[in-house]
Amino acid sequence: MLKLGKLSGHTDKLFVVDQQDVVKGVLPLSRLLTHSPILFVADAMVTDFVQFQVDQDASEASRAFERYDLISAPVVDSKGRLQGRLCVDSILDFIREENDEDRLIQAGVSEEEDLFSSVWKSARNRWSWLLINVTTAFLSTRIIGLFEDTILQLVALASLMPIIAATGGNTGNQTSILIIRSLALGQITPLNVRRLIRKELSLALLNGTFIGLVVGSVAYFLYRDQALAGVMALAMFLNLLVAVVAGLAIPLLRHKFDKDPAAGATVMLTSITDAMGFFIFLGLASVFLL
Amino acid sequence: MLKLGKLSGHTDKLFVVDQQDVVKGVLPLSRLLTHSPILFVADAMVTDFVQFQVDQDASEASRAFERYDLISAPVVDSKGRLQGRLCVDSILDFIREENDEDRLIQAGVSEEEDLFSSVWKSARNRWSWLLINVTTAFLSTRIIGLFEDTILQLVALASLMPIIAATGGNTGNQTSILIIRSLALGQITPLNVRRLIRKELSLALLNGTFIGLVVGSVAYFLYRDQALAGVMALAMFLNLLVAVVAGLAIPLLRHKFDKDPAAGATVMLTSITDAMGFFIFLGLASVFLL
Repeated sequence: MLKLGKLSGHTDKLFVVDQQDVVKGVLPLSRLLTHSPILFVADAMVTDFVQFQVDQDASEASRAFERYDLISAPVVDSKGRLQGRLCVDSILDFIREENDEDRLIQAGVSEEEDLFSSVWKSARNRWSWLLINVTTAFLSTRIIGLFEDTILQLVALASLMPIIAATGGNTGNQTSILIIRSLALGQITPLNVRRLIRKELSLALLNGTFIGLVVGSVAYFLYRDQALAGVMALAMFLNLLVAVVAGLAIPLLRHKFDKDPAAGATVMLTSITDAMGFFIFLGLASVFLL
Repeated sequence: MLKLGKLSGHTDKLFVVDQQDVVKGVLPLSRLLTHSPILFVADAMVTDFVQFQVDQDASEASRAFERYDLISAPVVDSKGRLQGRLCVDSILDFIREENDEDRLIQAGVSEEEDLFSSVWKSARNRWSWLLINVTTAFLSTRIIGLFEDTILQLVALASLMPIIAATGGNTGNQTSILIIRSLALGQITPLNVRRLIRKELSLALLNGTFIGLVVGSVAYFLYRDQALAGVMALAMFLNLLVAVVAGLAIPLLRHKFDKDPAAGATVMLTSITDAMGFFIFLGLASVFLL
């Protein structure tokens, strides 16, 4: 490899292999420069080094590059034979792409589309997601259809119900985005899942009480109706619980069944918080207000 | 620097300075190893190299590291004097943090919070955003309050209106997330903004027609009312136009005024698409259906 010609880019170390190409150690260039030239390679090389398997997950490799501040590392097969080299520039590109992809997928834009894709390509690309959105929106609002009599008797419900639904969606998104990030960083272990669930549920109780009181007060201020304000506060409280449970469950379950925890998380989550928000609020209203 | 001791981590090149510490060139270790030892530093060094100013933006530096596949680069002051060294491991950490931050800010979770923050800290952190959400939700649904008479005369409107609002929010989000990404990647120049706006508007016309027809057909299937189906289709079409305009304008304007284009984009966007969705749909209904 070292023939007084050029070294390929990102060469911070040479890989030392035996006759079967099995990687025995690495020899950092900085060691080559700072060690006496009469030493043997075997004495100068580092034997405690990071290597990757050809079939290893790229996100695992990218975490290792970050953790150990690597510039390059050997990639070996199951017998430890050198198959290639992984460099930090590919890792940089991978991290950028992975992040982009996650964000686009969550919003329902396919990863292949960019700003300068043709109009037709973009349109077809977004239709499938929009259709899913429209379908879930129709399904969740069918709940409202069940309560049309209730709304006719108290039309204020029509302008209050979207508030319960939307706030639930936002809260659930906050929870799920934290979970998705922690799953991506490898922070979630079976051991701390229980602790995490307990924390997010306590948070939901606290937030639900606070936001429930705020929303109830505003409703009272607008309609001067104590019972309506109470139903509003209770529905808000319950829907925030639903939102946090869904925000926890969707990414964790998808992860458990080896699916991308981020894909479509927002769509699934908001259809649950919408449907349950309408159901809880209109249901409570039909029981307590009429 | 090179005293047959140890080189600090990530040293892929040495920086060559004159007596005033002004960086004159860089000497890659690989060149040191592959060049004849009798050459002068000035003859072996590379004079066409990337350097950063101390006051330069970190995201600019991270894009340069990606573009030129750098491992380390000198950081200089305004007179070109060496002030420090920027390495790829810091860039890797920076990209990860920047991505995380963007995503959390968009969902209204402060960047300092993680899964294992205390319940109280997390609660306070999320309240401010939830309150903003609740406030915008109340404001946008006040529009519905203006049309309570219309709803009393045709209660089907109550279950159809959230569909117009939600689909608008989703479409606008797709557009804004593409813009935010392109701004972050530095892809948007004054020159191609016009082209971009034309493309997204054509897309909105196409999507609006398609989704409008779908939504109108489903509404007809549910209520067997041609006029209602027509109003539904037209309102959907118009709100998708509103959504795309808002999805373009919010990040572009925030960027123009040197604000983070992502912060709160979702909240602002959905309050616009909600309010306009309710207004367009109920407004058209009160004109054409009653």
